[in-house]
Amino acid sequence: MQLKNDLLLRTLRGEETERTPVWMMRQAGRYLPEYMKLREKYGFFERVQTPELAAAITIQPIDIIDTDAAILFSDILVVPQAMGLEVQLIESKGPILPEPVKTENDLKRICVPDVNERLHYVFEAIKLTKKELNDRVPLIGFAGAPWTILCYMVQGKGSKTFDEAKAFCYMQPKLAHQLLQMITDTTIAYLREQVKAGVDTIQIFDSWGGLLSKSDFENISLKYIRQIVEALKEETLVIIFAKGAWYSLKEMSETGAAGLGIDWCIEPQTARGFAGNNISLQGNFDPAKLLSPIPQIEKEVKQMLSGFGKKNHVANLGHGILPNVPVDHAKAFVNAVKNMQWED
Amino acid sequence: MQLKNDLLLRTLRGEETERTPVWMMRQAGRYLPEYMKLREKYGFFERVQTPELAAAITIQPIDIIDTDAAILFSDILVVPQAMGLEVQLIESKGPILPEPVKTENDLKRICVPDVNERLHYVFEAIKLTKKELNDRVPLIGFAGAPWTILCYMVQGKGSKTFDEAKAFCYMQPKLAHQLLQMITDTTIAYLREQVKAGVDTIQIFDSWGGLLSKSDFENISLKYIRQIVEALKEETLVIIFAKGAWYSLKEMSETGAAGLGIDWCIEPQTARGFAGNNISLQGNFDPAKLLSPIPQIEKEVKQMLSGFGKKNHVANLGHGILPNVPVDHAKAFVNAVKNMQWED
Repeated sequence: MQLKNDLLLRTLRGEETERTPVWMMRQAGRYLPEYMKLREKYGFFERVQTPELAAAITIQPIDIIDTDAAILFSDILVVPQAMGLEVQLIESKGPILPEPVKTENDLKRICVPDVNERLHYVFEAIKLTKKELNDRVPLIGFAGAPWTILCYMVQGKGSKTFDEAKAFCYMQPKLAHQLLQMITDTTIAYLREQVKAGVDTIQIFDSWGGLLSKSDFENISLKYIRQIVEALKEETLVIIFAKGAWYSLKEMSETGAAGLGIDWCIEPQTARGFAGNNISLQGNFDPAKLLSPIPQIEKEVKQMLSGFGKKNHVANLGHGILPNVPVDHAKAFVNAVKNMQWED
Repeated sequence: MQLKNDLLLRTLRGEETERTPVWMMRQAGRYLPEYMKLREKYGFFERVQTPELAAAITIQPIDIIDTDAAILFSDILVVPQAMGLEVQLIESKGPILPEPVKTENDLKRICVPDVNERLHYVFEAIKLTKKELNDRVPLIGFAGAPWTILCYMVQGKGSKTFDEAKAFCYMQPKLAHQLLQMITDTTIAYLREQVKAGVDTIQIFDSWGGLLSKSDFENISLKYIRQIVEALKEETLVIIFAKGAWYSLKEMSETGAAGLGIDWCIEPQTARGFAGNNISLQGNFDPAKLLSPIPQIEKEVKQMLSGFGKKNHVANLGHGILPNVPVDHAKAFVNAVKNMQWED
């Protein structure tokens, strides 16, 4: 089966394309009234665990704002859940893990699970989504980076600084590395099954990578991301998005990943300088800028595209789209990328 | 009057010193049992507005952990308060400004105040602190950067992303710049009076600078910081700490500031490369690392000092000390800096 629009995949392979592909992190989300209707009716994990709902939500932005890729509607916290930790998601309050991991004893409560037993609903959602997408655009699978997952497993909730998670790593490094390896093993199996179920590419989200110093990022995060890329790179194209970890773009570019996500706090040329020319960069529009008037959005999208250049760039936001962005503004972002006129 | 310990000032002037000076952001704070006693007895703004209490709190860390500088106990939000906005500080919940600035009409509620009328208690606290410090160490005054102050004035509370503050700047730029200029004018007058009252150096805290792209940082933040440095640099030594804004270190180094604060997410040599050799760098120990075992703290302090080199460095944390740090660990940090043995 040939994808009708494979701009994203060709860009990630390093090929020249007729235009820059575009999608948005959290494009299947709260800014869409169609999503809000399902959100009123079904709980968070009900939407995640019901393949029909997950597939419908995944496809909404393709129909409505016409991005060049779909990303599976799911959550990075299904992994700690599958490993044996309770995860509650109180809407608009963020996740709560009521029994976080703090001690060696706590580690006994969790395991590296059989992903086909515990996360089968994800693979079913992928198959259903692929069928319903009918090869219009590629489907992106994803997982959290082990460090970001550890953050939630140890801290038990969201945080600006994840101090407790860091303190766990600094005070009990042996335990921390044991936990990171368990998460890594689970994630590799999980992503491998996502690929078997049909995703065309995967993204590893290290949302909290940028809280670490460069040497800690290497030791606590990148070491494990590297294992994941190593295990998956022959089977699929891998994108790493370690938000804020600009200082390790060079090291990330050497993992075998096909793409690196960057946020708006690094300029395209600077990121290119760090990452070199043999990898695609993805980003990096400030999500808050989608609240600007539409002509301003169009102007700044052009600037962004010029900054990255025509090749090896996937247009995206630098973080998830905000719930209060008007749908018209999201469309304006996507269309501005599609309508870019390059001067030769 | 000659300071007995002027290591900080000499370092900021670019002079060679016998050792690296050290202080810690939020060193007068919740990790100190002596501070907690006063916190139980007096409300937050009571402590800030009573010169005797502010002076006593400012001097506590000098007596207890023996840093090379005192920093006035106060809060950046006294500025919006003086400009006419109500600021509530619910302990351990963060600040609330119940009537934030959203429209042109809201701007009429605030003014550039006479700082001697509205903030006299700060200047009295400085005079009293200087007297009681008895020239042991220099006293640092401070204010928030205009962008960081705007964040609170518009968002009305703390936030991970300050989207509403950003949206205000993107959607109503004229109004935003008007507000930023009012904050800047107030801040210049405020800092000038701090210097007159006796502070030996000042620090501008741009806690949320790193949320902006480089061009927005220039336009919304640095433009106004530059005015402040310009106005003060003949009268005192100025340190700029724009957390996370590594991408503008070069531009910040060209403002006339004597020092630049950096966080742990940039390596000392990288920061030096951006900032050049004619300015002092301040930082950059990860505050969460003070939760590590003491031998580990000592090891990492040595690494940090080696990274910065012996000259033009003020040892500090990369952000405020955490409330759960044992006092012994804070002392170990300070002593490790003092005991550093340089190999020639």
